[in-house]
Amino acid sequence: MARHSTGRRPDCENRVPKRSHPVSQSLQSARRSGALGESYLKVRNETLALARGLSDADATVQSMEDASPAKWHLAHTTWFFETFLLETQLAGYQSFDPSFCYLFNSYYEQVGARHPRPRRGMLTRPSLEEVWTYREHVDGAMLRLLETEPAEDILNLVELGLNHEQQHQELLLTDILHLFAQNPLRPAFHSPEPLAVDEEGPAALSWKSFDAAMAEIGHEGEGFAFDCEGPRHDAIIRPFKLASRPVLNCEWLEFMADGGYRTPTLWLSDGWAIANERGWNAPFYWEDRAGEWQVMTLRGMQPVDPAAPVCHVSYFEADAFARWTDRRLPTEVEWEHAASLHKLQGNFADSGRLRPKPPVAGQGDDELLSLFGDVWEWTQSPYTAYPRFKASAGAVGEYNGKFMNGQYVLRGGSCVTPGGHVRATYRNFFQPDKRWQFSGLRLADDL
Amino acid sequence: MARHSTGRRPDCENRVPKRSHPVSQSLQSARRSGALGESYLKVRNETLALARGLSDADATVQSMEDASPAKWHLAHTTWFFETFLLETQLAGYQSFDPSFCYLFNSYYEQVGARHPRPRRGMLTRPSLEEVWTYREHVDGAMLRLLETEPAEDILNLVELGLNHEQQHQELLLTDILHLFAQNPLRPAFHSPEPLAVDEEGPAALSWKSFDAAMAEIGHEGEGFAFDCEGPRHDAIIRPFKLASRPVLNCEWLEFMADGGYRTPTLWLSDGWAIANERGWNAPFYWEDRAGEWQVMTLRGMQPVDPAAPVCHVSYFEADAFARWTDRRLPTEVEWEHAASLHKLQGNFADSGRLRPKPPVAGQGDDELLSLFGDVWEWTQSPYTAYPRFKASAGAVGEYNGKFMNGQYVLRGGSCVTPGGHVRATYRNFFQPDKRWQFSGLRLADDL
Amino acid sequence: MARHSTGRRPDCENRVPKRSHPVSQSLQSARRSGALGESYLKVRNETLALARGLSDADATVQSMEDASPAKWHLAHTTWFFETFLLETQLAGYQSFDPSFCYLFNSYYEQVGARHPRPRRGMLTRPSLEEVWTYREHVDGAMLRLLETEPAEDILNLVELGLNHEQQHQELLLTDILHLFAQNPLRPAFHSPEPLAVDEEGPAALSWKSFDAAMAEIGHEGEGFAFDCEGPRHDAIIRPFKLASRPVLNCEWLEFMADGGYRTPTLWLSDGWAIANERGWNAPFYWEDRAGEWQVMTLRGMQPVDPAAPVCHVSYFEADAFARWTDRRLPTEVEWEHAASLHKLQGNFADSGRLRPKPPVAGQGDDELLSLFGDVWEWTQSPYTAYPRFKASAGAVGEYNGKFMNGQYVLRGGSCVTPGGHVRATYRNFFQPDKRWQFSGLRLADDL
Amino acid sequence: MARHSTGRRPDCENRVPKRSHPVSQSLQSARRSGALGESYLKVRNETLALARGLSDADATVQSMEDASPAKWHLAHTTWFFETFLLETQLAGYQSFDPSFCYLFNSYYEQVGARHPRPRRGMLTRPSLEEVWTYREHVDGAMLRLLETEPAEDILNLVELGLNHEQQHQELLLTDILHLFAQNPLRPAFHSPEPLAVDEEGPAALSWKSFDAAMAEIGHEGEGFAFDCEGPRHDAIIRPFKLASRPVLNCEWLEFMADGGYRTPTLWLSDGWAIANERGWNAPFYWEDRAGEWQVMTLRGMQPVDPAAPVCHVSYFEADAFARWTDRRLPTEVEWEHAASLHKLQGNFADSGRLRPKPPVAGQGDDELLSLFGDVWEWTQSPYTAYPRFKASAGAVGEYNGKFMNGQYVLRGGSCVTPGGHVRATYRNFFQPDKRWQFSGLRLADDL
Repeated sequence: MARHSTGRRPDCENRVPKRSHPVSQSLQSARRSGALGESYLKVRNETLALARGLSDADATVQSMEDASPAKWHLAHTTWFFETFLLETQLAGYQSFDPSFCYLFNSYYEQVGARHPRPRRGMLTRPSLEEVWTYREHVDGAMLRLLETEPAEDILNLVELGLNHEQQHQELLLTDILHLFAQNPLRPAFHSPEPLAVDEEGPAALSWKSFDAAMAEIGHEGEGFAFDCEGPRHDAIIRPFKLASRPVLNCEWLEFMADGGYRTPTLWLSDGWAIANERGWNAPFYWEDRAGEWQVMTLRGMQPVDPAAPVCHVSYFEADAFARWTDRRLPTEVEWEHAASLHKLQGNFADSGRLRPKPPVAGQGDDELLSLFGDVWEWTQSPYTAYPRFKASAGAVGEYNGKFMNGQYVLRGGSCVTPGGHVRATYRNFFQPDKRWQFSGLRLADDL
Repeated sequence: MARHSTGRRPDCENRVPKRSHPVSQSLQSARRSGALGESYLKVRNETLALARGLSDADATVQSMEDASPAKWHLAHTTWFFETFLLETQLAGYQSFDPSFCYLFNSYYEQVGARHPRPRRGMLTRPSLEEVWTYREHVDGAMLRLLETEPAEDILNLVELGLNHEQQHQELLLTDILHLFAQNPLRPAFHSPEPLAVDEEGPAALSWKSFDAAMAEIGHEGEGFAFDCEGPRHDAIIRPFKLASRPVLNCEWLEFMADGGYRTPTLWLSDGWAIANERGWNAPFYWEDRAGEWQVMTLRGMQPVDPAAPVCHVSYFEADAFARWTDRRLPTEVEWEHAASLHKLQGNFADSGRLRPKPPVAGQGDDELLSLFGDVWEWTQSPYTAYPRFKASAGAVGEYNGKFMNGQYVLRGGSCVTPGGHVRATYRNFFQPDKRWQFSGLRLADDL
Repeated sequence: MARHSTGRRPDCENRVPKRSHPVSQSLQSARRSGALGESYLKVRNETLALARGLSDADATVQSMEDASPAKWHLAHTTWFFETFLLETQLAGYQSFDPSFCYLFNSYYEQVGARHPRPRRGMLTRPSLEEVWTYREHVDGAMLRLLETEPAEDILNLVELGLNHEQQHQELLLTDILHLFAQNPLRPAFHSPEPLAVDEEGPAALSWKSFDAAMAEIGHEGEGFAFDCEGPRHDAIIRPFKLASRPVLNCEWLEFMADGGYRTPTLWLSDGWAIANERGWNAPFYWEDRAGEWQVMTLRGMQPVDPAAPVCHVSYFEADAFARWTDRRLPTEVEWEHAASLHKLQGNFADSGRLRPKPPVAGQGDDELLSLFGDVWEWTQSPYTAYPRFKASAGAVGEYNGKFMNGQYVLRGGSCVTPGGHVRATYRNFFQPDKRWQFSGLRLADDL
Repeated sequence: MARHSTGRRPDCENRVPKRSHPVSQSLQSARRSGALGESYLKVRNETLALARGLSDADATVQSMEDASPAKWHLAHTTWFFETFLLETQLAGYQSFDPSFCYLFNSYYEQVGARHPRPRRGMLTRPSLEEVWTYREHVDGAMLRLLETEPAEDILNLVELGLNHEQQHQELLLTDILHLFAQNPLRPAFHSPEPLAVDEEGPAALSWKSFDAAMAEIGHEGEGFAFDCEGPRHDAIIRPFKLASRPVLNCEWLEFMADGGYRTPTLWLSDGWAIANERGWNAPFYWEDRAGEWQVMTLRGMQPVDPAAPVCHVSYFEADAFARWTDRRLPTEVEWEHAASLHKLQGNFADSGRLRPKPPVAGQGDDELLSLFGDVWEWTQSPYTAYPRFKASAGAVGEYNGKFMNGQYVLRGGSCVTPGGHVRATYRNFFQPDKRWQFSGLRLADDL
């Protein structure tokens, strides 16, 4: 019932310690500072390009607790730069609107109180227009900050902020899809035009084998990575094989036809309970329209493409499917071991397709097709800390570590992940019942 | 969890039987037809004036299940004319958009399936702009229909549609207030300017006595009334007295200070349970700001005016307050008996105040101040059918009768009721726990 | 989730003021005192006879929030005498166990805190055996109290306590039926033996007409009545007719066959929502067993008897049925007006049948068959205060008044009501969605 | 609301395939058969001894969905033998009551439909007495079966059944404690007598270090183990240290005093949400009684013993505590590595203490005190399948594998675990919010 919010506006100071930096900055820092300035503009403009077609209303409504309004994504990513950088690092910075600290904090306890997540859709003010102005205000200040050639740790925060923004670019798309799927009109985010179903049949399934090994996984060294991707550490590889491509819609249809959604012994106990409670009988967004399976996409309702990777399935479904085939999901160690030498290319958001693409043999650099892009691939690994993992100090340490419970790792990125955002060590994570992300699966098995 | 709607669009035909009318229309009908055309434009334009300041987002979000988005109100009232009049009565009428039949039906089972009430806020499309166009489309057609000088029953439906629209004008205001109260920024719907607290003290309380009588209540004869206002019938009046004005905020503050919200013996059992569960300790929209009670209004946060009628209290609170004073709420029979000879004037929405006004002795025509307007007055009468009540035939018969359960009658209109909409026989009704309407109370007692 | 109770044991003193009585008691009081002693033993022993067959476990489990464990009924009715009489009126009375004041208070706020209603089934201790001992302890003391020939107001409280106990006798039966119906074994409370279905067909339906009148309803004068049965007052009778018998199962089966449970226009809006949410498609306790309708009864699963009154229907169902027949439910005024001269006999609990009996023409004293007993008859009247009703002073004033919200009045008693408990003015009341009571209906209509 | 169960009684045949065994049984099998007969009687009698003091009501009520009634535990363990052994392996076996197959199946989908878990407490019939008779019936038959010197796979099932029964012995105690804690009388399951608080102060904390190693963990070879304890496999040990004893109540009190329950940065995000929602401010069963912390135990309310291991804390609390100390929980690999050479002794249920005992230096065989018994120790390891784990074939394969989601591993057994039941490889598992088990923690850290 109507528990109206209290209007309490917290004092948002003291969120990160003011730091003093050594006066002389290295040349390297200057170069990096310049490069980051370019990246900054590029990433921020990509967000603009993405959200440009949304109306004020499209950008304001929250379709479920898991999702956020597009406007909130636009403002929160901006708040990140303002809060963690401008307010402490840019002398004389004037905050755009002090109330935004409360409105657009996501979950940083150390920054202070925040607007409750399930009520993000109540904010018809500020308008989308005002949020664009907020972004311009912060962008101007950020560029001024970068011109000061700030210290490494500041530049690291900028880089974190840009990767953070890219994550929200993907979420903006998954959340808009969810919102539009709630509308009986099933509006399209982009025109459906370039998505003719491929004429070739689905790619054949083969397996790539891997020998026993002591491998190393996790991030180390140069290049950006989130804290949870490290420390790099040894891991035992037991002989296994990995499917040459993700599971396809045509295979999923067989699973359905064989009673996959009605056979309790295929399912984890929790999954079976949820599948029944929620009446699952097909992947999320699938609709049976007069006997034809269609699927709600960012390009409106479309026929299900049998040759494309199955998408919008939960971990519980992926796990049940794997059991049905008498195979299993890979561990994240196995996945990363297989991916570590793989070329980092695939169908990402910058292709503009915004739907998973049927894998075609011969397109990749070896026999693992669609390893990156298309659909996030569920692994059987719970999202836990790597050995000797320590969360970063300060509020940004809340970024990943506190979510290490009840979630599973997904790997490889999807067709709505910004190009260049993921890498072999990248760990995405969601609860096993979530289906609104672009999540699919690739089979593995013991050798 | 995300149960996305099925996209099923019902066949909306057959909703009301096509009727054939006699060719010759009486002069009286022509006159009435003309008058209704004027009323039509007036009422429809008042809606426009009311909602003009809302953004696309303001008009789209649904703040709770009880409330509807402004855009939905604008479209639903239009749907009413299109569905019950144009589609069956205007030859060659072209429906604006066939999907609107599903989207904007409120609760008319006989018209067909409809978009679920709790999901009205998911409709970011059609946009507010498109809804304005929808209204223009229907307005043009309605004026054409009225020019055909249609039969009495058609004119009756037009009149019903206009009164229906006025009800939604009030709901649009109560729902926007609720939405804006969810926003930590507490935006104002109208500027706060003309609402200085009156300097005179609160109006003194006196009582007006009524003798035993056999009275008649209910609507009969000329002029519009909703079906539930009749049939007119005898009712026993037992000697009673009625307070000269509604209960004021200053009196409510005394109730609070005396532990009114913490004393179970003052409350109905259901009310006590709900008051505790929801943490009630003051009227809805009141906030304690550093020791000062403020209240969210259509003009933003304002100090509570001690001399104004208390507003936004539930039946449970009103009943507890009356018990605290050792008085009682009036029955609807008593209220109507007292009001039947009273001048129909007061602080309605057309005053532009949009807040209850302190009653001032001598302003009314007799000693019952603020009987109409300011705040709806809870009566102790459950909303039931009058003797020999029959709901109208067809879908419009669902208007009132099927809601005759679990609600109490309120009388007199409020400061957000359109001027000219209510009358002495008018029965408003809400569940006893509802607080977002402009509801207050007036005390009564036995003699 | 596991919110364990706090173990707080309230101070149970001060619950009713100690009163001093005049020394000399009238002879009348002595006589009444003696008569009440006999009644006391009779009623208390009837409870014993009723519950004798229950095991410790049967008597302990709570099958839903609306129901209470048999043990709780046994203890609470005893607590009533202990709390409202012995502790203040019997010099030197030693409380059986001070913790029982907390455990067995139902809803008397003025007596103090109490064990939460939904957790009554957690009390495996005290055992059923201990509760029987508790009853003996209190019975002994009560008889000693009655020997002191106490004052009228004390005797009134004893009488209230006995009527209270009878109400709980009925509830004990309805609650045991509900409990046993949860058990897949469907155990029988009593042997099924005497319940052969009658061979004669169902009694024909006729109507009894009543003229317009100014009637009096409500209790006044001698004999016990609950406070809510008064004050006696005038009421307008409009010409109406009343069915000669309750609605029968054979008629209900027609309603079902005609889609009664699938036709929204027959239902109140709230009722339709609940019927769908809970999947109602037949009266409560009915089960389709291989095409035959059976019903869970206090004598185990039995075939539905077409000639018997329908039982275990909610107000919502009764109202929908009446609308299906194009009739209506009677008001409580009409019911009482018709019943006021009727012989107070029928199939009550003391018949031992414990199921509604098919009405047989000629058995009653006039043409209203089964008016008393068999099934409680829903009226269309919300349970409200009669004009000038004042609840009794002190804690017993919480008995009825505070429940006057959201309930409807039922009249006439049922086959599980103790013989001699009801009368023409008796008002039972339940929420419109409740079905576990022995509730049916009788049709009425305007003349 | 009252959704009464359907009374459907499934066909319980075909639950396990009838197997034919070779006629000649090895001598080894005969010996094992005899030994198992003795074990059978011993374990079954221990259950009897445990539950002997419970009343019919104590044994029937279900205090929450996570817990089961004692009667259900007694019947379900018996059902296990009847279903998986007698009905298919003992020629001419007469089932005790065919309805028990439905009533007492826990979660074996392959055996058929079952009484819903949350409604186990509705079964007041069969009575406790009848369940004891059921046990005798099955015990007689089981001994006859064992006299036939059945094949290995049958004997394995008997052994599984006995270990299964021991698990339910522990659950019976945890569930009775929970039930008694719901009763404001806080009854004691056993007399409080032998539990004087130790006079010596709490054991000092020291650390035992472990070098890097390639270790083996998991069960292999002789002796019973559950399927999830294997296969035995390599695991990398990184240098770490383990606390010499579990965390004690005195340390937990410091955590509380330091605001541990009010500091979000100590908590996992899910844990913080749950801790707030449920109002956690101390371990489960702790009550502040006039400023003294007491705890509900199987021996009634007792003062919290500062020197004893903290008990009834969730994973979320254990994890927050570890973060507060800047240490961490051990992984299950580390725990098992440390425990593998440790003497398997400790304070188990057969000590009769039924409460955790303060660890005393010098009592163990090395510096890891209370490693077994006292309290289950949360590890940081999600409960997942070991490499190459395959669930057993048939219905018993549902024993463990399908629960491998959303739970954490606990190790070492508790003061209510039957003596001889656990071992170093034993994996217990519960969801991270559960607190009614005897769960505590031991700190670890990296070296």
